[in-house]
Amino acid sequence: MKNLLSADQISRELFNEIYLTALSVRRALREGRKKFNVLRGKCVVNLFFEPSTRTRSSFEKAGKFLSADVINISTSASSVKKGESLIDTVKNLDMMHPDIIILRHPCEGAPFLAQKFVEASIVNAGDGRHQHPTQALLDCATLTEHFGSLEGKRVTILGDIANSRVARSDAILLRELGAEVFIYGPSPMMPRVPEALGVKRLNSFEEVKEISDAVILLRIQLERQNAKKTFPSVREYSELFGINRRKLEELKPGTVILHPGPFNRGVEITGDVAYSKRSLIFPQVEMGLSVRMVVLSLLCGRLEKLREEIQ
Amino acid sequence: MKNLLSADQISRELFNEIYLTALSVRRALREGRKKFNVLRGKCVVNLFFEPSTRTRSSFEKAGKFLSADVINISTSASSVKKGESLIDTVKNLDMMHPDIIILRHPCEGAPFLAQKFVEASIVNAGDGRHQHPTQALLDCATLTEHFGSLEGKRVTILGDIANSRVARSDAILLRELGAEVFIYGPSPMMPRVPEALGVKRLNSFEEVKEISDAVILLRIQLERQNAKKTFPSVREYSELFGINRRKLEELKPGTVILHPGPFNRGVEITGDVAYSKRSLIFPQVEMGLSVRMVVLSLLCGRLEKLREEIQ
Amino acid sequence: MKNLLSADQISRELFNEIYLTALSVRRALREGRKKFNVLRGKCVVNLFFEPSTRTRSSFEKAGKFLSADVINISTSASSVKKGESLIDTVKNLDMMHPDIIILRHPCEGAPFLAQKFVEASIVNAGDGRHQHPTQALLDCATLTEHFGSLEGKRVTILGDIANSRVARSDAILLRELGAEVFIYGPSPMMPRVPEALGVKRLNSFEEVKEISDAVILLRIQLERQNAKKTFPSVREYSELFGINRRKLEELKPGTVILHPGPFNRGVEITGDVAYSKRSLIFPQVEMGLSVRMVVLSLLCGRLEKLREEIQ
Repeated sequence: MKNLLSADQISRELFNEIYLTALSVRRALREGRKKFNVLRGKCVVNLFFEPSTRTRSSFEKAGKFLSADVINISTSASSVKKGESLIDTVKNLDMMHPDIIILRHPCEGAPFLAQKFVEASIVNAGDGRHQHPTQALLDCATLTEHFGSLEGKRVTILGDIANSRVARSDAILLRELGAEVFIYGPSPMMPRVPEALGVKRLNSFEEVKEISDAVILLRIQLERQNAKKTFPSVREYSELFGINRRKLEELKPGTVILHPGPFNRGVEITGDVAYSKRSLIFPQVEMGLSVRMVVLSLLCGRLEKLREEIQ
Repeated sequence: MKNLLSADQISRELFNEIYLTALSVRRALREGRKKFNVLRGKCVVNLFFEPSTRTRSSFEKAGKFLSADVINISTSASSVKKGESLIDTVKNLDMMHPDIIILRHPCEGAPFLAQKFVEASIVNAGDGRHQHPTQALLDCATLTEHFGSLEGKRVTILGDIANSRVARSDAILLRELGAEVFIYGPSPMMPRVPEALGVKRLNSFEEVKEISDAVILLRIQLERQNAKKTFPSVREYSELFGINRRKLEELKPGTVILHPGPFNRGVEITGDVAYSKRSLIFPQVEMGLSVRMVVLSLLCGRLEKLREEIQ
Repeated sequence: MKNLLSADQISRELFNEIYLTALSVRRALREGRKKFNVLRGKCVVNLFFEPSTRTRSSFEKAGKFLSADVINISTSASSVKKGESLIDTVKNLDMMHPDIIILRHPCEGAPFLAQKFVEASIVNAGDGRHQHPTQALLDCATLTEHFGSLEGKRVTILGDIANSRVARSDAILLRELGAEVFIYGPSPMMPRVPEALGVKRLNSFEEVKEISDAVILLRIQLERQNAKKTFPSVREYSELFGINRRKLEELKPGTVILHPGPFNRGVEITGDVAYSKRSLIFPQVEMGLSVRMVVLSLLCGRLEKLREEIQ
């Protein structure tokens, strides 16, 4: 595999390979072993056209722990404003011999376009409302670890589905792994054709409670909601769709909560729920680092080398 | 010692240990030896909620010279604005297995709160007006080298004492090391109860001249002073409390000048004074790097390893 | 050589030495060998007072591929605004024992001033409208590779010559290497005394077509042109001085096009021309990385070591 652009590139077999290796990587990290020679002499570039500390630093650590040289380029404003196109930027970057470009871009499809012009591998770290495949990997890995298997599990994604690359990526991989996927949230945030995503829309929190083995909460763009005069306001969202202690207890006993972070305390989720035993939010972050170390190794053809080193 | 949060954690014995090792480190650096394996496989995160180039790059170099992986995260705006709390941010970060988090934050007490939620060690790199313990270490190390010992020395801190974490940290460690500490500056900038800091307030520059073996100048926040209509204006400050060549010559012959930097030329200090033989401003910066290399090694339990390597 | 401040420091002999080594470096990079121990234990600081992703990341990669510790400091705003002078900043930085400071600054002469106050080597990565010597090196290396030799070649620099450090640096080194240098562009952008630069001014595109073996296009500052009411507007510039497919075909068959990047699509150059076979724009970027690896090694006295390692 040269590029990781979309969750639908990940078959069940590939997922299992990544997942099992990620577990070993995580064990090594927990034991304090954080430096491997797997990618020594390789160069990883974080090319972020949107602000991000979380995903960027997760990839940066992943690269550095594997001994790659990591270069951060944030171009929210600079060259792009100067009239250079995405193609020009990545082509230019590619002339400096990076091995992997981690690309986040506000436009859907940006990494698909970029990969046609470069020799480096491309990892899609989020393109607009479209895809964020390493998020899908880490969410499914976290759930797989928790449940043993996703086969037959029922997972509800709750929030602004229509605008979410996380929802889109998660839905695809969850289904590939045998889960049944539901969506729930304010009507204006629902996709017009849920069937196109292979998901079923739920119509009340009652249904969410009855059905879900896991609930994946999505981030609300506070700025966007506050600016709009339409339904729901942030306050309404929190009231109607946020998960607090009371609602958590209404869920089935084994139901777990996920969130891609950073979460808005008191909006999608209250602090006590985020830190409760039924929250997998922090395990998600830990899994994310391991999964990304595996992905970087995989794209450089060094998965075997990683496995040897972490023994 | 797991965390370094406040100057009052540093006993005279610990200071001496840090100081002597820092001198050896500095000698190695001066000889051009800048790469040690002490922290290979360790991860240091600079988590700065306030802009800083100086302290951040000092810690970054310290980490890299010791072969740690160093990650910079500046969140003046990003995730914090997005509604995430400090606790969420550090807890999240901690899931990616850093060994040390260097934390600068505008709120007093932030690192004390943070350390309760993480496994990583925390270094307080400045929390509001409260503490900045590595500044105290480097200031006291610089003065100890200059005078041989701080026992019985009289040190005046001059400037906006009430709002200064440097003043607070310095006063504590200077007194621990046997110095007598005085403060001087515009009345609105003096603390209400100097005795609470264990310092004595001087009332005129005449007194400063007669008493001081060393004068530590503090930075004036130009923005703040310019905005306020109250006494003193920047111009008045410079006139009444700034040190220029003439005032320098009025001090006792052996009196030395320190400043945590970056200094405002012509406000707290004139350029010729900063670059004079009696200024320890640049030695402070050099000492700062060495001290921070020692602190990072200490918190990772590798002080012994550092000492061996720099032989 | 301790510092690289200006293109006129580079003799024909030195150029050839740098050029030949850069070719070997580039071959190694193309073969996927990207990690050398040449500068292990050395520290390179990117000190940029103007925004830049391209030059900064090229130097950052150059340093990291050579195993140096690289620290990025962007001070568009921070300490400089705080009232600290350039001298104070570099002197301060120098106390932390960097080996090389890569300096970009909006003021002409800044690195010449800086070098008087520091022990580290200084590389001028652009000082206002004055010099950018590594750009000259990479441009001349790219042209030398293409033509075999620059002796007797005729090179036209097209654009805002009067305000361009690239034009100034290129003109000096091109002439040192035996090329004849011409300039062309809108009258308000021409220097008053072209002879002072040792170049001849052309008066029409007809002349450019007849004469040039190579045309180096310069970037237009879109902001500046849009703001000014004077000639030419961006649209006029594009019409009269931009190179599109039609104009490219009017050039002599062997004429090549260069541009320091990032280029404004549809202003100085159209996308199809930039990606045509006669464009050396992307080879310039690749050469830039190699040249900078050679320059860093040279300034640390480790050119021989680099040559050995890349064998």
